Amino acid sequence: MRLVVVGADGRMGKMLIRAVAEAEGCTLSAAIEREGSDAIGHDAGTLAGLHPLGVPVTDDPLTAFAASDGVLDFTVPAATVMFSELAAQARIVHVVGTTGLSEDDLAKLRAAAYHARIVRSGNMSLGVNLLAALVKRVAAALGPEFDIEIAEMHHRMKVDAPSGTALLLGEAAAAGRGVDLADVRVSTRDGHTGARKPGDIGFATLRGGSVVGDHSVIFAGAGERITLSHHAEDRSLFAAGAVKAALWAHPKPPGLYSMTDVLGL
Amino acid sequence: MRLVVVGADGRMGKMLIRAVAEAEGCTLSAAIEREGSDAIGHDAGTLAGLHPLGVPVTDDPLTAFAASDGVLDFTVPAATVMFSELAAQARIVHVVGTTGLSEDDLAKLRAAAYHARIVRSGNMSLGVNLLAALVKRVAAALGPEFDIEIAEMHHRMKVDAPSGTALLLGEAAAAGRGVDLADVRVSTRDGHTGARKPGDIGFATLRGGSVVGDHSVIFAGAGERITLSHHAEDRSLFAAGAVKAALWAHPKPPGLYSMTDVLGL
Amino acid sequence: MRLVVVGADGRMGKMLIRAVAEAEGCTLSAAIEREGSDAIGHDAGTLAGLHPLGVPVTDDPLTAFAASDGVLDFTVPAATVMFSELAAQARIVHVVGTTGLSEDDLAKLRAAAYHARIVRSGNMSLGVNLLAALVKRVAAALGPEFDIEIAEMHHRMKVDAPSGTALLLGEAAAAGRGVDLADVRVSTRDGHTGARKPGDIGFATLRGGSVVGDHSVIFAGAGERITLSHHAEDRSLFAAGAVKAALWAHPKPPGLYSMTDVLGL
Amino acid sequence: MRLVVVGADGRMGKMLIRAVAEAEGCTLSAAIEREGSDAIGHDAGTLAGLHPLGVPVTDDPLTAFAASDGVLDFTVPAATVMFSELAAQARIVHVVGTTGLSEDDLAKLRAAAYHARIVRSGNMSLGVNLLAALVKRVAAALGPEFDIEIAEMHHRMKVDAPSGTALLLGEAAAAGRGVDLADVRVSTRDGHTGARKPGDIGFATLRGGSVVGDHSVIFAGAGERITLSHHAEDRSLFAAGAVKAALWAHPKPPGLYSMTDVLGL
Repeated sequence: MRLVVVGADGRMGKMLIRAVAEAEGCTLSAAIEREGSDAIGHDAGTLAGLHPLGVPVTDDPLTAFAASDGVLDFTVPAATVMFSELAAQARIVHVVGTTGLSEDDLAKLRAAAYHARIVRSGNMSLGVNLLAALVKRVAAALGPEFDIEIAEMHHRMKVDAPSGTALLLGEAAAAGRGVDLADVRVSTRDGHTGARKPGDIGFATLRGGSVVGDHSVIFAGAGERITLSHHAEDRSLFAAGAVKAALWAHPKPPGLYSMTDVLGL
Repeated sequence: MRLVVVGADGRMGKMLIRAVAEAEGCTLSAAIEREGSDAIGHDAGTLAGLHPLGVPVTDDPLTAFAASDGVLDFTVPAATVMFSELAAQARIVHVVGTTGLSEDDLAKLRAAAYHARIVRSGNMSLGVNLLAALVKRVAAALGPEFDIEIAEMHHRMKVDAPSGTALLLGEAAAAGRGVDLADVRVSTRDGHTGARKPGDIGFATLRGGSVVGDHSVIFAGAGERITLSHHAEDRSLFAAGAVKAALWAHPKPPGLYSMTDVLGL
Repeated sequence: MRLVVVGADGRMGKMLIRAVAEAEGCTLSAAIEREGSDAIGHDAGTLAGLHPLGVPVTDDPLTAFAASDGVLDFTVPAATVMFSELAAQARIVHVVGTTGLSEDDLAKLRAAAYHARIVRSGNMSLGVNLLAALVKRVAAALGPEFDIEIAEMHHRMKVDAPSGTALLLGEAAAAGRGVDLADVRVSTRDGHTGARKPGDIGFATLRGGSVVGDHSVIFAGAGERITLSHHAEDRSLFAAGAVKAALWAHPKPPGLYSMTDVLGL
Repeated sequence: MRLVVVGADGRMGKMLIRAVAEAEGCTLSAAIEREGSDAIGHDAGTLAGLHPLGVPVTDDPLTAFAASDGVLDFTVPAATVMFSELAAQARIVHVVGTTGLSEDDLAKLRAAAYHARIVRSGNMSLGVNLLAALVKRVAAALGPEFDIEIAEMHHRMKVDAPSGTALLLGEAAAAGRGVDLADVRVSTRDGHTGARKPGDIGFATLRGGSVVGDHSVIFAGAGERITLSHHAEDRSLFAAGAVKAALWAHPKPPGLYSMTDVLGL
């Protein structure tokens, strides 16, 4: 499978180039940066800290998409919407790890998905998406006598709490129980809180060091606990997830898919 | 639901009496010990460290079963086979937490299950059975690029390793992958082991203190780990699981069920 | 060593009776309840769910202390102050697990400690006190490039957050760094928090199920984490800690001691 | 402080170059490879994936050491012995992360330490060395009623078990108890093991994925557990530990030091 990386000179773009180079069953067909970028003309492999791959960075996605089977995209919403239109024209796969898409942006992606195979997720790691599917299932299987708590830890530079992934897991738990997370979410506890309210979903946030991202969902009942955890060692796994999504979507009909589809859960 | 506890004077029997007394929707209808036991004639509640329940221990299961809807049984294989025949005659529920049943014993249970509703599991905790179902699913969803490892810790008096529950989880993982645990099981590592063989399922055993039972199944891939854990705080949860199984089986047709059925997984 | 248990009919009193009965090197010499208690006259062993110990509960501490070497006390501040005066008169050991003592109460304990050997701690578990000593040491050894975070989990009925023990650990960390916990404590994170402030000590609180008490202190640096954890399985360990404190204090001169002294840290 | 990196073109050498470039209070003064290496003449910064540092790689340690204050060395025993002699002549700091040194090699290091300040450790991470110091202390403080267990997890390519670091922690525990690890070490448990023998120190080994290195030392008593853990996220922390050791040793008198000295424990 021939894959284009867009946003090739960004931190995530370089990781995507390395992920394509390392994966079996795909090759890097092009690397795209925006017009005027210093990276134009440089070899994509060298840019990514690898040996040269013979693929110079260009600012011409149209030509690149025409000669490719898929595009890996962790850029910004405006660029992603544009790329999805080009992917639809080229009838190729578009893997979208871009965050912060508006409802309007999503409508445009759905339109593009009549012709493109689009895989989109707020977290491209296989593990987290699998975890969310499990959490939903367990929350549905266990009665309200099991309390649900979500703990997460990230590096000291993270500016928001709880993490987007913790909220994604909380939404999976709430969906399993058939409730709205907003109605049961407890994000802080300090001082005299009173006893825990049945049905609450609690969040606990830890920050420190260089932690890439740890998440645990705890189901605490009378005398026992089930804990489902994900530990990310390395940001490169988000790139590896994107490549896996592209390979999965290659033979599929056009449509808008999620990582849950990729995992078959 | 009227429930009989057999083996009423054992450690597990007392826990079952307390679990029935505490649960909603059921009452203790009888408590059975073998002929000649010192407990015969004593009140089952007092025996279990509760207030008197007005139920004296007897050695007459036949009369007891006739006036009950179910029996909770963590005894020994020979007794369990006999009780299953009585349960079949009385057409009641038989919850079996007894371990060490032979293939022959199981055949007799299957025969009894034409008339009785039998729920049997090597571990009556809801959490462990749920965990096993998850492990099977995850092992099937993830490719061989995720290594499977199982760690467990139990108190210092435990005489076997890995624990039966760890093996149950290993079998769930092997089933998810479509392999036989015996072919991939690695229970020890010491000295120069060489690199890990793809497809192996490893076990690590910890022993110490008064730990009731902790189990973790780790799926370790490139750059990420998923860990599914169960932590038992208290042996009473096995009794609570048995009561829940009885209540679940009460309205069901005759048959041989597992805790997986009880959980609806 | 002959030990009296005061508050013998309370949940903690019964645990203390069992702890004395089980420990080597000590015997139960008396069991005290307040005047008018239903427990007066009953055997202390039977009360605690054991075989009879031949020690009837009385409401006469004066006589009891005169025939004993120590008293174990998890009652209320007013009773504890009175018992410390009696212990001083009898020149015996007084182990105080009572919480909520005022500055005035503490002054009275210090006065009694001229004649009694008093061991007092907000948490009588050996493990937690050892952990606090370690935390202080590690916080002093590691520079501010290690972020300190404290996570705790307790059962769903707990009404305050963070737990007193989590705060005790936070104070140990602050003391190690030579700062005041009040100046660096962060107990909640929700929404846009900004990056972590250097020197902060963060707390994360989980509530659910029947968890007796789990505490972790995390030191998170660049590329590595040290985590020091305590896991309480059973409230009886607080009783065992009290007995150990009494045995330790037996040969000591009068004075006010802490569990840190008992551990020799 | 002016630092030389030897073995500059190896995986660890490149990490050391990056660590020196990132740390405050030191600069890279030279980068050494063996005669004939392809890296000779290349800029050390470029080699390490950084911007050029104006320091070409040479094969001349003698000249390099004369113009430096310290050398960082994760090479092989024969080279390390030679470098220690040159460091002694130059009266500079020699940080040794090399493993597999024989008793004979160590004797030569001790001789060199009459003139050089040598810091040597089998694990240059600050966290692991701190953990070992804590483990020794806790093992000494807690009686034999606490069982000691050590669990570790490493990536699937690791060929030995338990890890050297797990053994280092086990030796610290044994030293704390005043026993010889060889007499109490239990590295495998499988089948009918019988109850745990008092005083044993158990090891449990997990292998999988890309785990850099996790270690936990568990002290399990009646009703409670203390767990001291180290989690390595990134091999670069071993390089950062080496730089910290060099800065610490700079003002010290000649001698052979360990990371425990660097930490002041």
